[in-house]
Amino acid sequence: MDFSAFFPFWDQLQNDERTALEATAFKRHFRKGSILHRGNDECTGLLLVCSGQIRAFTSSPEGKEITLYRLLERDVCLMSASCIINSISFDITLAAEKDTEVIILSADVYKKIMQKSALLANFTNELMASRFSDVMWLIEQIMWKSFDKRLAAFLIEESNIEESTTLKITHETIGNHLGSPREVVTRMLKYFADENLVTLSRGTVTLKDPQTLSKLAY
Amino acid sequence: MDFSAFFPFWDQLQNDERTALEATAFKRHFRKGSILHRGNDECTGLLLVCSGQIRAFTSSPEGKEITLYRLLERDVCLMSASCIINSISFDITLAAEKDTEVIILSADVYKKIMQKSALLANFTNELMASRFSDVMWLIEQIMWKSFDKRLAAFLIEESNIEESTTLKITHETIGNHLGSPREVVTRMLKYFADENLVTLSRGTVTLKDPQTLSKLAY
Repeated sequence: MDFSAFFPFWDQLQNDERTALEATAFKRHFRKGSILHRGNDECTGLLLVCSGQIRAFTSSPEGKEITLYRLLERDVCLMSASCIINSISFDITLAAEKDTEVIILSADVYKKIMQKSALLANFTNELMASRFSDVMWLIEQIMWKSFDKRLAAFLIEESNIEESTTLKITHETIGNHLGSPREVVTRMLKYFADENLVTLSRGTVTLKDPQTLSKLAY
Repeated sequence: MDFSAFFPFWDQLQNDERTALEATAFKRHFRKGSILHRGNDECTGLLLVCSGQIRAFTSSPEGKEITLYRLLERDVCLMSASCIINSISFDITLAAEKDTEVIILSADVYKKIMQKSALLANFTNELMASRFSDVMWLIEQIMWKSFDKRLAAFLIEESNIEESTTLKITHETIGNHLGSPREVVTRMLKYFADENLVTLSRGTVTLKDPQTLSKLAY
């Protein structure tokens, strides 16, 4: 396992620190659609994403969802090991959006080393700040942006990730990403179709005019 | 200045670290209503709240606002020194809600010490996690809670902070806290008044039935 791909300062850690972290590490595969970590689970451990794509979301007591951020190859997931930091008082769920391979590191061992190692503690700071920034961006989107712009931005982002203008995605799944009821998504997609921005068929949204969608989104 | 009130591990820092931090510190008073830090300001420095009350908020390009969290006596404000952490890519504004006294610490000096000191880096982690948790709570409120419940919760919180059931606050200010237009606040307050939960007069909201408001809020 190549830890320096995830921890740029890996070589600067002390020998015993590296050995302790390596000793706890194991690889695990998650099928597309499976749950890697559930909100109120015990500490699953740090996840180092080797390949695939993970969606982090929060949900209401009634099961409504909104996507907080995504993790891609080479990302490190701290929130699956939130027991590392006492002041984290929220729960998120992590789901594999594609077949995903992760390395799992023990939260206990990581925490113990972080308490002594300024390198690891500062790295953890930067990790958390990145996710915090993602969530602040989301608040600004929810508060100040109209739904047509948010939906357009989501379709463009999906299209970039999938490297395709044909998206296999249901209106309900889009609603779960954006925290909106399915009917609201359907209504806006129909409006986009009327405007010749997309074409719709069962389980598929095709971007017909990505350029205009991009202009609408930003 | 008593730094151990803000940094519980103050005595465990090295002598030269303590001296360096102390050498940069100065006290400053802010009148109620004044701005301590504006979103795109350069790094103002860490703020240690000696007395008073600070509101952290984000705003839209058109000047709409929503309160993210509040800082009270003994709180340490990291986001006024966001240059300490590279991955923070959002801006917040800080305003004094009461006459406020703070100690300001140099962000540069803090950052330099934090890079070497696991104690300070881990403390910073906990600080950021607390604010991150505040913002996650806010997202859940915005996404899953109806406006009547959010308004009731806000009135109860204000009443607790002010230790009074008579709140000197305009509908517009309430709107800026909750990220909602003034008219929406006015309409809901009128509904609360019809239900005998509050009484309204110019610039004042009086809680008549805090118990029922609390039940509504939680």
